[in-house]
Amino acid sequence: MSIMGLAVKLMNDLSDGVKGKRNLITDVAGVKVGQVTVDEDDVHSGVTAILPHTGNLFRHKVPAASCVINGFGKSVGLVQIDELGTIETPIIMTNTFGVGTALNALTKKMLAQNPEIGDSTSTVNPIVAECNDGDVSNIRKMAITEQDVDDALAAVGDSFEEGAVGSGRGMMCYDLKGGIGSSSRIVTVDDKHQYTVGALVMTNYGYLTDFIVNGAPIGAPLAKMLAEDKKKEEKGSIITILATDAPLNSRQLQRMAKRATVGINRTGGYIGNGSGEIVLAFSTANQVDHFETSEFDTVTRFNDNQIDLFFRATAAVVDESVLSSMVHAESVVDRKGRLRLSLIDACKKLSNQQPEYSDMVDQVFSQLGVIK
Amino acid sequence: MSIMGLAVKLMNDLSDGVKGKRNLITDVAGVKVGQVTVDEDDVHSGVTAILPHTGNLFRHKVPAASCVINGFGKSVGLVQIDELGTIETPIIMTNTFGVGTALNALTKKMLAQNPEIGDSTSTVNPIVAECNDGDVSNIRKMAITEQDVDDALAAVGDSFEEGAVGSGRGMMCYDLKGGIGSSSRIVTVDDKHQYTVGALVMTNYGYLTDFIVNGAPIGAPLAKMLAEDKKKEEKGSIITILATDAPLNSRQLQRMAKRATVGINRTGGYIGNGSGEIVLAFSTANQVDHFETSEFDTVTRFNDNQIDLFFRATAAVVDESVLSSMVHAESVVDRKGRLRLSLIDACKKLSNQQPEYSDMVDQVFSQLGVIK
Amino acid sequence: MSIMGLAVKLMNDLSDGVKGKRNLITDVAGVKVGQVTVDEDDVHSGVTAILPHTGNLFRHKVPAASCVINGFGKSVGLVQIDELGTIETPIIMTNTFGVGTALNALTKKMLAQNPEIGDSTSTVNPIVAECNDGDVSNIRKMAITEQDVDDALAAVGDSFEEGAVGSGRGMMCYDLKGGIGSSSRIVTVDDKHQYTVGALVMTNYGYLTDFIVNGAPIGAPLAKMLAEDKKKEEKGSIITILATDAPLNSRQLQRMAKRATVGINRTGGYIGNGSGEIVLAFSTANQVDHFETSEFDTVTRFNDNQIDLFFRATAAVVDESVLSSMVHAESVVDRKGRLRLSLIDACKKLSNQQPEYSDMVDQVFSQLGVIK
Amino acid sequence: MSIMGLAVKLMNDLSDGVKGKRNLITDVAGVKVGQVTVDEDDVHSGVTAILPHTGNLFRHKVPAASCVINGFGKSVGLVQIDELGTIETPIIMTNTFGVGTALNALTKKMLAQNPEIGDSTSTVNPIVAECNDGDVSNIRKMAITEQDVDDALAAVGDSFEEGAVGSGRGMMCYDLKGGIGSSSRIVTVDDKHQYTVGALVMTNYGYLTDFIVNGAPIGAPLAKMLAEDKKKEEKGSIITILATDAPLNSRQLQRMAKRATVGINRTGGYIGNGSGEIVLAFSTANQVDHFETSEFDTVTRFNDNQIDLFFRATAAVVDESVLSSMVHAESVVDRKGRLRLSLIDACKKLSNQQPEYSDMVDQVFSQLGVIK
Repeated sequence: MSIMGLAVKLMNDLSDGVKGKRNLITDVAGVKVGQVTVDEDDVHSGVTAILPHTGNLFRHKVPAASCVINGFGKSVGLVQIDELGTIETPIIMTNTFGVGTALNALTKKMLAQNPEIGDSTSTVNPIVAECNDGDVSNIRKMAITEQDVDDALAAVGDSFEEGAVGSGRGMMCYDLKGGIGSSSRIVTVDDKHQYTVGALVMTNYGYLTDFIVNGAPIGAPLAKMLAEDKKKEEKGSIITILATDAPLNSRQLQRMAKRATVGINRTGGYIGNGSGEIVLAFSTANQVDHFETSEFDTVTRFNDNQIDLFFRATAAVVDESVLSSMVHAESVVDRKGRLRLSLIDACKKLSNQQPEYSDMVDQVFSQLGVIK
Repeated sequence: MSIMGLAVKLMNDLSDGVKGKRNLITDVAGVKVGQVTVDEDDVHSGVTAILPHTGNLFRHKVPAASCVINGFGKSVGLVQIDELGTIETPIIMTNTFGVGTALNALTKKMLAQNPEIGDSTSTVNPIVAECNDGDVSNIRKMAITEQDVDDALAAVGDSFEEGAVGSGRGMMCYDLKGGIGSSSRIVTVDDKHQYTVGALVMTNYGYLTDFIVNGAPIGAPLAKMLAEDKKKEEKGSIITILATDAPLNSRQLQRMAKRATVGINRTGGYIGNGSGEIVLAFSTANQVDHFETSEFDTVTRFNDNQIDLFFRATAAVVDESVLSSMVHAESVVDRKGRLRLSLIDACKKLSNQQPEYSDMVDQVFSQLGVIK
Repeated sequence: MSIMGLAVKLMNDLSDGVKGKRNLITDVAGVKVGQVTVDEDDVHSGVTAILPHTGNLFRHKVPAASCVINGFGKSVGLVQIDELGTIETPIIMTNTFGVGTALNALTKKMLAQNPEIGDSTSTVNPIVAECNDGDVSNIRKMAITEQDVDDALAAVGDSFEEGAVGSGRGMMCYDLKGGIGSSSRIVTVDDKHQYTVGALVMTNYGYLTDFIVNGAPIGAPLAKMLAEDKKKEEKGSIITILATDAPLNSRQLQRMAKRATVGINRTGGYIGNGSGEIVLAFSTANQVDHFETSEFDTVTRFNDNQIDLFFRATAAVVDESVLSSMVHAESVVDRKGRLRLSLIDACKKLSNQQPEYSDMVDQVFSQLGVIK
Repeated sequence: MSIMGLAVKLMNDLSDGVKGKRNLITDVAGVKVGQVTVDEDDVHSGVTAILPHTGNLFRHKVPAASCVINGFGKSVGLVQIDELGTIETPIIMTNTFGVGTALNALTKKMLAQNPEIGDSTSTVNPIVAECNDGDVSNIRKMAITEQDVDDALAAVGDSFEEGAVGSGRGMMCYDLKGGIGSSSRIVTVDDKHQYTVGALVMTNYGYLTDFIVNGAPIGAPLAKMLAEDKKKEEKGSIITILATDAPLNSRQLQRMAKRATVGINRTGGYIGNGSGEIVLAFSTANQVDHFETSEFDTVTRFNDNQIDLFFRATAAVVDESVLSSMVHAESVVDRKGRLRLSLIDACKKLSNQQPEYSDMVDQVFSQLGVIK
């Protein structure tokens, strides 16, 4: 076996844990995802919605936490998550200048569902996360509509597309086409209980020269071929949503959220200055009743001594989600008419143009589960 | 002299530093404030805009910091302030459900002014702060329009009204009418240089029983008279904007922002669970050029050994701003037709109904500079 | 009734909740305090030890949180509290240069009690908090010994002295003699369950001119009399320990700890640059077993909707603890032979020298429960 | 060329920037390092001291920041660094139970050098960082003496040993022998100015199965050979010290410190629950005079638009420092008589026992610059 073959085999042996049924964030029971892609003229954008559960989220909040890896970003709703440790609305992802409209649409949705909000009870804390797709899409048009958000929310389900779809339509990752990626792992504790950890990422960061796939530095020859310049300023971002059905509290979820950086960096990231790296993590267990009147309730507390299982799973699902967003993305013609290559198309081109890399491309494809 | 008279005299002696010319945040050179009040049917709300300077804020950012005293709030833009230490747009204040619309209006304003944003350079980080005026106004109508925001921005100037105006129209402070308040102090360092510290607050928090004016616990008899119940849940908030022309960097501004809590608490606050207490602080000195190409520039660094002068001034201007928001507010009929008393009207009523408190009311009025 | 009389009456009516049996932190069942005062030549210092419970703290950790109000301080152990949300040793308070020795003594104590530490299990995170008593005591002598720490730990009990004792021996508060103060409140939730909140403070901060007692600005005339200069740099600190038997988790304890600043500021503090203001809060409920092997356990979760009761109690106990540290302190001759007046002695002197203040002094004494 | 050969070549091409003269943290002008190794009976420990400059650090503080990647650690002094943004003493690294003694020794050193400390001016904030070497050394003996600390401080110079020396003597990294590692990079800004970034790490974390060298997963076969179990609880830590002569302020240094995690994770780390990962970063530029009396001074402010150069350099120096700590470490017999293999010895053993890995070992050695 070749050295690289050995490496691949070792990597696969390592591959942290068993994947969930769909290998998507929706493997966490109750979590749903819906998307709308907006692709008209020079607009290549969209909306991706994540539902922590399908009930009334305001009335039954989920324990949650955020982690700002790098705060060059405009996501909305983090202040209250940090204080109260809960999420009480769907999570909407879109482009940077769609945040205001998404906020309005999400607020209206919550008001319609809950007549008490802003009347007899408190207001509501909508969560909207964003990346700047302005490299590919005419973001200045502010093209996302409230209807788009409503449609994404109406489209939620267990299965959903990855790649250049939804809010990921115009995103670029490592100078290749990025977008929406997702993954899941089954965590078995004490050989008894099984929990699921899922990630969904919107990828829009990184330099091609830095890109690695399970240790294979495929980004460097791709960058040389595509004449991508390492010196450009990074203006991207990555949003990571983590879900689990394990009874982690907000402190534990915050710690888990912090580990997303491990997965991101495994693919070649270095937390660039201009890269807004924001993580939200929630648990579907131990929900919090908004109108709780009793003084206390009884909840399950997960043992910190075993939490490394979730930290490892987080690194694994985020790493795979980033790669998955790229593997599933198609090449896209951007707002200026330039063809923005997908990872697959770029690798094929490399393999054709520079046969000395064809073995490495094969290995990368093999690891990525891609049939050439 | 009566004991209370002595107390008042002592308090006045203490009164920290010299007030600025207008005793408003606009005493900090370059800072402007504009407001729009929306008062139709059951909507009692509005917009207040603060300009750190009147130039192109995106191109010439101001050093800034935020401090989340209590994060039960939905203000937008803090993540990036915390990371980069700058503010690059006007600051818009409105009600909680006006944030999305304010975000859209502010984004459009910035895009119109800067054709590079989202095209050849990065996006922009709009700052919108909010309180929930739903007790007084029908917040569920989401009545604030983009035009309201534009109008507030167009109305900016050196002088502006305080009290139940602008975004403060529907706010309640200590169960009395709150709103917009402002104050300033001149800080003299080394008997040589003079700097200005200004505050503008939007007050919407507190229980009447807790309210004190320079140590006089006038809130307790007012609460008894008005039968306000201490046990209600606090659902308010207070937004504090601090401005200075002193060359404080973001770390120092962050420390200054933290001291806003001293001023708030001097009037009887205790940082209630439901009170979103958010502070933004900026300096008009040492601005940051967005398109800076040179590797470094030279700036003035303020000596931490003297920073207490600014901490004291912060406590003073925030304390006075809170009181000023109440002194200037008129009584308002709320969305349900209830008359929500102003501090002045409530005190007069107390003085009339319970003459044993008339001396205390006189003292309070005297301290507040109110002619009965 | 005079206005001030009215004010006092109102303040007393306000007085937040019922005090515990001893009005000490030890009213929280299981919490114990022990002290050693070191008073030789020009050394006026000591050690105060707080035990969250009397069992094996390493094996049965208490949920905990810290809050750094102002970080000009050298307390030890906060990093791990913030990460794991537990305290696993007694808390030792001493002077700044006694921290290393206290750390060694505490480590040895924990090692002796737990043979597994550093051998078959992890290390241990000792908690040591400090203020700088160098104004009164020759702190450069580094006079605290490991034996002093052992003795303080051996002396723990339910009752303990307040004032210029233990680690508070050399501390100055508002330019008067400070030291150790404590207080407690009974919090009744839903008219059913009763919990206790206790505070213990080591006070070493503030300017006399700023000092107020329940709104009475007694500090100003005292400062004038004693010719204390407001312009001096504040080099003090205040350590606050909060305990409760309510089942608050680390996130909730962190929020509670943050409210200590309200109590501190009610007495005239403004969070000076040089004042290290550190708060530790712990709950004796829901303890964490170090050798927990099961994957999860079941705990009581307190309803955030009712947490204001604890925030109010925190403000009340910290306010009273600060005053109590001063009321109980005796005047002390400092390292340079200067007599450092206690609050009581200073007030008596004021009353004698300036009879116009005798009524205010009487009122202050009355509020402080001091028999003249 | 083989695929792995290609990979190595690409990795080398990537290798971020030019190394400094010594490829040590002391390439940053003024920075010195001194060490003492304590190796007696079952004690395998020591002290490593880093001097930000050789002048009076208390009088001339360096801008600094800390970053707690994971707070399962007992390092001392971070609270004040976070508040004031400066370091004012040497940095001492030792084992967990040596912290108290190191604190005492360092305090005495500072007192001897500065008669004003604790007398006419404030106290001093000593910095002590630690990892738990209890797996290899009998940490319960608390064997580090104040003399050891003094000796390390006396031994400072430009060159120093890496590997199982100083405080790194008993540390284990990825289940192999860890210790002290260091590296540096020259950062060229605008093709004009050159700055140096240096790192020094104390490595004591990680699982062998996870270990990778520039993408080569050599840890997996090593773990299988050594029968190291992935399921063990991680009880390690890594301390990272970053130095630069670039005029970065504390906010910028904090951001730089955060990027240390990228370098750590490139070698296979995932920020385990029990791994205390603490980073300190300082700049030798723009020092702060303790006795500064003038109100302000003038400093150079580095342009954030170019800060990615420093983030990349940070990832590179930390990655290389971790590997360097392992490459330089010798195998050590631990407190229980077990031989704890160095990376080199383990790789040689693998190559001998399992020839199919000899090519991978060769490549790893080649990348690590090791002559077999």
